[in-house]
Amino acid sequence: MTQLNIQLLLTGDELMSGDIIDTNSPMIASQLKELGVEITRKVTVADNLTFLIDEIRHMSIQSDFLIINGGLGPTSDDLTAEALANVCELPLAEHPEAIEHLEHWCEKRKMELTQQNLKQALLPKDCNIIPNKIGSAVGFSIEVNDCIVMCTPGVPVELEVMMEHIRTIISAKLPDNIQTKTTRFQVFGIGESKIQKLVDESFPDWPQEVALGYRAASPTIEVKLTTRSADDEKLKQHWQNKLEDLLGHHIYHHIESKPVTVSEKLVQLLDAENLKLTLAESCTGGLIASNITSVSGASNIFEAGYVTYSNEIKIQTLGVSAETLESDGAVSRRCVIEMANGALNKAKADVVVAVSGIAGPNGGTPDKPVGTVWIAWGSMNNISSVCLAIPGGRKYFQHMVSTIGQDLLRRFIKKIDEIPLYIKEREVK
Amino acid sequence: MTQLNIQLLLTGDELMSGDIIDTNSPMIASQLKELGVEITRKVTVADNLTFLIDEIRHMSIQSDFLIINGGLGPTSDDLTAEALANVCELPLAEHPEAIEHLEHWCEKRKMELTQQNLKQALLPKDCNIIPNKIGSAVGFSIEVNDCIVMCTPGVPVELEVMMEHIRTIISAKLPDNIQTKTTRFQVFGIGESKIQKLVDESFPDWPQEVALGYRAASPTIEVKLTTRSADDEKLKQHWQNKLEDLLGHHIYHHIESKPVTVSEKLVQLLDAENLKLTLAESCTGGLIASNITSVSGASNIFEAGYVTYSNEIKIQTLGVSAETLESDGAVSRRCVIEMANGALNKAKADVVVAVSGIAGPNGGTPDKPVGTVWIAWGSMNNISSVCLAIPGGRKYFQHMVSTIGQDLLRRFIKKIDEIPLYIKEREVK
Repeated sequence: MTQLNIQLLLTGDELMSGDIIDTNSPMIASQLKELGVEITRKVTVADNLTFLIDEIRHMSIQSDFLIINGGLGPTSDDLTAEALANVCELPLAEHPEAIEHLEHWCEKRKMELTQQNLKQALLPKDCNIIPNKIGSAVGFSIEVNDCIVMCTPGVPVELEVMMEHIRTIISAKLPDNIQTKTTRFQVFGIGESKIQKLVDESFPDWPQEVALGYRAASPTIEVKLTTRSADDEKLKQHWQNKLEDLLGHHIYHHIESKPVTVSEKLVQLLDAENLKLTLAESCTGGLIASNITSVSGASNIFEAGYVTYSNEIKIQTLGVSAETLESDGAVSRRCVIEMANGALNKAKADVVVAVSGIAGPNGGTPDKPVGTVWIAWGSMNNISSVCLAIPGGRKYFQHMVSTIGQDLLRRFIKKIDEIPLYIKEREVK
Repeated sequence: MTQLNIQLLLTGDELMSGDIIDTNSPMIASQLKELGVEITRKVTVADNLTFLIDEIRHMSIQSDFLIINGGLGPTSDDLTAEALANVCELPLAEHPEAIEHLEHWCEKRKMELTQQNLKQALLPKDCNIIPNKIGSAVGFSIEVNDCIVMCTPGVPVELEVMMEHIRTIISAKLPDNIQTKTTRFQVFGIGESKIQKLVDESFPDWPQEVALGYRAASPTIEVKLTTRSADDEKLKQHWQNKLEDLLGHHIYHHIESKPVTVSEKLVQLLDAENLKLTLAESCTGGLIASNITSVSGASNIFEAGYVTYSNEIKIQTLGVSAETLESDGAVSRRCVIEMANGALNKAKADVVVAVSGIAGPNGGTPDKPVGTVWIAWGSMNNISSVCLAIPGGRKYFQHMVSTIGQDLLRRFIKKIDEIPLYIKEREVK
C-alpha cells in the first residue's frame, strides 16, 4: 500500500448516539483498497459546527485527501458545506450545477423545489461538483491546506454510486508505480474462513506477491486476487487457475464490470436459455419471487409465483394432495415435489423452485426442528429434492433458503454435477 | 445531555481495512445514553504505535474520559498498553491482578500459561484493573492529563460485560442533576425535510428545551423529542401533543421498547383484529408477501399470495377479465380491482392489497411512464384504489409501493379517513 495519507471524517448525531451502525466507512475502505490505498485515520463527530470546523482544519492539514461523509441533507443539522466554507475562508454560494440537479430531481418527482431543498445547493464558492445519480444532495470537492477535501452523502446507496468519482479523483494523484491488478470473482455456498482454510491446506506455497482478499456481501463472498505490479500478472493467472479449480462451481460469477447477485445471474441464465421460471414458496413467503423480480428484465423469464403459506392453499392452488399433507406433512419431500409439479403445470413454466420449511421461531418439532427445509427444483419429470438444516434465525433462514434454491436451479440449468458444499454440510438424511 | 467530554478511540487494522463493521461504538454509546451522557468524538486508527501515542495524548488532553477499545490481545499488533504507558511516562510492568486473572483463566481451560499470554499482564505500572469476566485480557484504567483513560477489549461480548464497570467509573463523576428524557415515534409517508418544514412553519415558537431529532430508516423515519431535565417533562408533553396532531396518522408507532417496521405493525394489527390477508402482486413481484412473512407469526394472518406477473396469469389465477386487459391494460384501476377481488375469493381472505405498475427501467409509455402504479386495497365489496407516480429506480419503486400498500391497508383497518401525504403528493388523476 502506498504512503498517501487519506483521512475520513464521518458526521452525524446518529453515528454518535449508537442509533445506527456505520457501514459507510468499511465500504469506502474496501473500494479504496482496490486502488492500493487505505484510510489512515477516521474521525466521527456529531452534527456540531464548531467540532466540524476544528476537525476539517486539523485533518486537512495532516492529510493528502479528506473524505467527509454525511451532513449534506436539507435540514438544519446538516452542516458540512458551512463548516468546509469556514475552513476554506470562502462564502457559501448557490452552485449553478447543484441548482440544476435539484430542479431536475424535483421535476422527475413532480415535487416543488422548496427553500429547504435549495439549502443543498449552498456550497463553498467555486467548489467542484461530484454528481449524485440517486439522491437530491450533490457531493463536492475543494482543495484546502494542500488537501483535496471531498464531501459525500451519508445515505449508503448514494455514497456507493459516488465512490466511482472519488476513486477517479484519488487515482489521478497516485504515483505511477502503483499499478494494482485485481481479479475478482463471486462465490456462493462457501464461507470466508472455509475458503481460507482450504487455501492454507491446499496451497501452503501460495506466493506473497498474490494477495488474496475477501469481501462479504451476505450471503455471497467476493474473492479478490491482487498483485502490485504488472510483472506479476502471469503469476496471478497461475494461482487464479488453481484457486478456481479448488472452489469449483461455488464460483458463480467472474466480475468484469460489477458484482451481480445470485438472482441476477439466474435471470441472465434463464433469459439466455429462453426458459420460463415459476416458484412455489411456503417458508420463504415470496422472498424468492421478490429476489427474481427485483432484477430488471425479469418479466422475460417469470410469469407466476405462488406463495402457498397454508396447507389448504397448497391443495387448492398447487394441487398438493391432502393425503400427502396428512401422511408426510407440509415439510416433506412429497409435498415440495407436488408443489413443484403443481406450479409447473399451472404456470406452464419450464423450470421451478419449490420450498417448504420451518422458519421459526415457533413451529419446530423434535423430528423437524426450526431450520428444517425441503427444497425441490428442476423441470417437468426431472425434479430433484433435498432436505437441509439451516438454523440461525427466521430472516437468515429465509435469506439462505431463497439463495440456495436459486443456486441449485442455476446448477441444474448449467448441468453441473458437483455437489455443493452447503448440501454436503447441511443435508438431513 | 451533560457537557462531560467523553471520547472514544478505536484501534484495529481490521476496522480501517473495511473487513469488519464496528458494532462496539454503537453499543458503548447506547449504554452511556442510559447515564444521560454521550460520546463527543470518536477516532479510529490502525494498530500503529506512533498513531496510537499521538491520539491518546491529544484525546486525553481534550477530554474528561477516554475509552480505548481494542489492542489488548496477546499478539504483536496489540499495542494499547505500550502506547498508554508511553503517554503516561510510566514503565510497563507485570500487574499482579492481571497475572492472577490469566492463571485462573488458563487453569479453567486446562491450558498452559504461555509467554504470549503473559504479554496481556504487561500494563502501565499501578493502573487499575477492570475485570474481564469472559476473555483473557483484563481491561485497565489510569488517569493522565486530567482524563480518566479506560482500556477495553475489542471482542464485543467481552466489552459488553465490561461496560458495567465503565459506567460505574463514569457515574461516580457525574453531576447529580442530569436526567435526559426521550420520546420516540415512527413515521411513514412524510420525509425528514418535510417534517422539519412543517414544524418550522407551524411552530415558530418551538422551545429550545425540547430537542427534535430524526433518524431515517428508509422508508420510515424515527422522530425523537428530548429534554435535558425532568423539569421539562410537561413542556415536552405539550409539544409532543402538538407534533402528533401535525403529523396525524403518518405516525404508525409509538416506541416503547423497540422500533417496528410497517409490516410488523400491520401483522400485529391483523392478528389483533383476527383478519386474514391475501396479496395480488404484479410489479412488486412478491415483495409485499416477503415483507409480511418475514414477521414471525405471519402464518396466523396470511395463507396465500399471488405473484401474477404476466397478463395470462392474471386471467388464469385471479380471474381478471381479458376484456379489462385489452381495453384498460394491466396497469389500470379495473385491473387492480379485479386482481384484489380475485385474490380475496381464491384465498378466502378478509382483506387484500393488489398492485400493478411499471417498475422500469423499461416498459414505460407516454401515458403510463415508468413509476406509475395502481394500488387497490380493502375488503370484499369495499375496495379502494389509487394511481401514484413513484419514480426513482426499480428497487426504490418496489420498496415504496410495497410499504405504501401496507400502510394503506393499516389505515383501512383502523378506519382512518385522513388522506396520507404520499397520496396528496403523488396521486395521478
